[in-house]
Amino acid sequence: MTVTVGVDVGGTKIAGGVVDASGSVVARRQIPTDPADPQATVGGIVKVARELLASAPAARAVGVGAAALIDSSGVIVGAPNLAWRNLSLRAMLEDRLGVPVLVDNDVNAAAWAEYRFGAGRGASRLVMFALGTGIGGGIVIDGRLERGAHGLGAELGHMIVERGGPACACGNHGCLEALASGTAIARAARERIASGSPVLAAADGDPAAITGEMVGAAAVEGDSFARELLAEAGRALGVGLANAANIFDPDRIVVGGGVVAGTGDLLLGPAVEAMRRLVVEGASRPEISVVPAALGADAGLIGAATLAAPGG
Amino acid sequence: MTVTVGVDVGGTKIAGGVVDASGSVVARRQIPTDPADPQATVGGIVKVARELLASAPAARAVGVGAAALIDSSGVIVGAPNLAWRNLSLRAMLEDRLGVPVLVDNDVNAAAWAEYRFGAGRGASRLVMFALGTGIGGGIVIDGRLERGAHGLGAELGHMIVERGGPACACGNHGCLEALASGTAIARAARERIASGSPVLAAADGDPAAITGEMVGAAAVEGDSFARELLAEAGRALGVGLANAANIFDPDRIVVGGGVVAGTGDLLLGPAVEAMRRLVVEGASRPEISVVPAALGADAGLIGAATLAAPGG
Repeated sequence: MTVTVGVDVGGTKIAGGVVDASGSVVARRQIPTDPADPQATVGGIVKVARELLASAPAARAVGVGAAALIDSSGVIVGAPNLAWRNLSLRAMLEDRLGVPVLVDNDVNAAAWAEYRFGAGRGASRLVMFALGTGIGGGIVIDGRLERGAHGLGAELGHMIVERGGPACACGNHGCLEALASGTAIARAARERIASGSPVLAAADGDPAAITGEMVGAAAVEGDSFARELLAEAGRALGVGLANAANIFDPDRIVVGGGVVAGTGDLLLGPAVEAMRRLVVEGASRPEISVVPAALGADAGLIGAATLAAPGG
Repeated sequence: MTVTVGVDVGGTKIAGGVVDASGSVVARRQIPTDPADPQATVGGIVKVARELLASAPAARAVGVGAAALIDSSGVIVGAPNLAWRNLSLRAMLEDRLGVPVLVDNDVNAAAWAEYRFGAGRGASRLVMFALGTGIGGGIVIDGRLERGAHGLGAELGHMIVERGGPACACGNHGCLEALASGTAIARAARERIASGSPVLAAADGDPAAITGEMVGAAAVEGDSFARELLAEAGRALGVGLANAANIFDPDRIVVGGGVVAGTGDLLLGPAVEAMRRLVVEGASRPEISVVPAALGADAGLIGAATLAAPGG
């Protein structure tokens, strides 16, 4: 049976797995990483991939997903939330691993995994939003991952939806990412939190330590302040969903990422409601199915491995 | 030689032509229309198409482009700037004309014409914006017009770029169309115009009669107020271009429509400058070529005819 190695490079860890043709992860390795040190991160990817290749002699290719702008030749052009810039990652990895390597944006990879094995199966036009530190995007059109002319497309989080709005990590203002990512939710929480909030307790009383996931967890527990923060982020996300609907006319939108996981309709409900209100002729057009991602944190590595497999 | 009939249905006129395989218009018919009367508009399309079919016996198909949301079966779902809704236009026209009819959004058709014969030739990922009464969009990916899962995509003018911004004809606020269309430019002119302005003179002293085209003409003549209005619209358009760049990673963006025609860099210059500043990693990525449309007002009918031709 065909197996391939997939590696997901995140801000704090490198997670790899051996993935079979059905999208199942049959072996795993994970190590921490320092996103500020590109060479150490490359070394970490090599280490994880080597161990997995050794554990699965049938594997003949490696797929890597990273939160970065990566061009069609596997060069990292830049990364708003990482220190990488102009790094020939594919060439470096192929040189050190001795097998073909595919390098892709992590949410492109995740969208492909959801399309092949998860919440996006059977969609004709799939748009994925992944809400984490930033907001990543992935687009599948007619069974093909749509990456753009140079591989730099699907940056849905940097769609500007509120000119002059809050500052984004990319340097602009009013990007969807600045309004609805985990970072944005945590910032809103810090700015308005009151003493006694369970969110503040989760951060050991230190507002600077608040994360979007803490807000999500408190919202699930019923905290009204946390619920309002998720709803606000949801309404902003809804503008992004409506824009995606107007632009792509998708039959499926998948929303994933750590901020959304487990929060049910607390964020997605207001997002879908806003989308339906904002999409052109919303009352007359076919309903757009908006669903949570199904593969969780594994989507990136499963997608990267699958894209690297012969026949993708 | 293959010829086909193309018909472009606008707000004030129905313009048709016989189009050959090289995209040339070899015969023309044009009649006025009342957009508030759907049945009269259908009658007008039939009249224009019949006359052109009679003049070109080799023509065996008709393509129609209209400023509307049109689904894959040729039903007009709705039209923010027209009175049409739930109209089975393709079926009605095939019934009355007795030849195969293709019905498509006018800017989808125009984008296809620009891709095949105009400013979009050779592009791998082409995005078109057409600035008129509204803002229409068209998307060509890898030599294929991308219309979405149900034919309702590429509504780039209803991308929301300024939450809470000016009202749009679609009922929302802050759509690109509400900031950079001819209607938006005319509204801004009316709100701020001073007596003695050449724009007011062009409207015979009646602010309500000001059009985006009048502003464009005065700007070309050197009027500084008109130039500032075009530059403002250009900066707003630039947000839309940057969003399109981040989403599609196009190698070509074509900007057309009556508001842009003849104004050179007065609108496009500020738009491109804003796009370069706003696109993620703008300094590191390949330059995106932004060019004016080449086929002018004929793009819609040429594209509609070409899409209706065997082999498109």
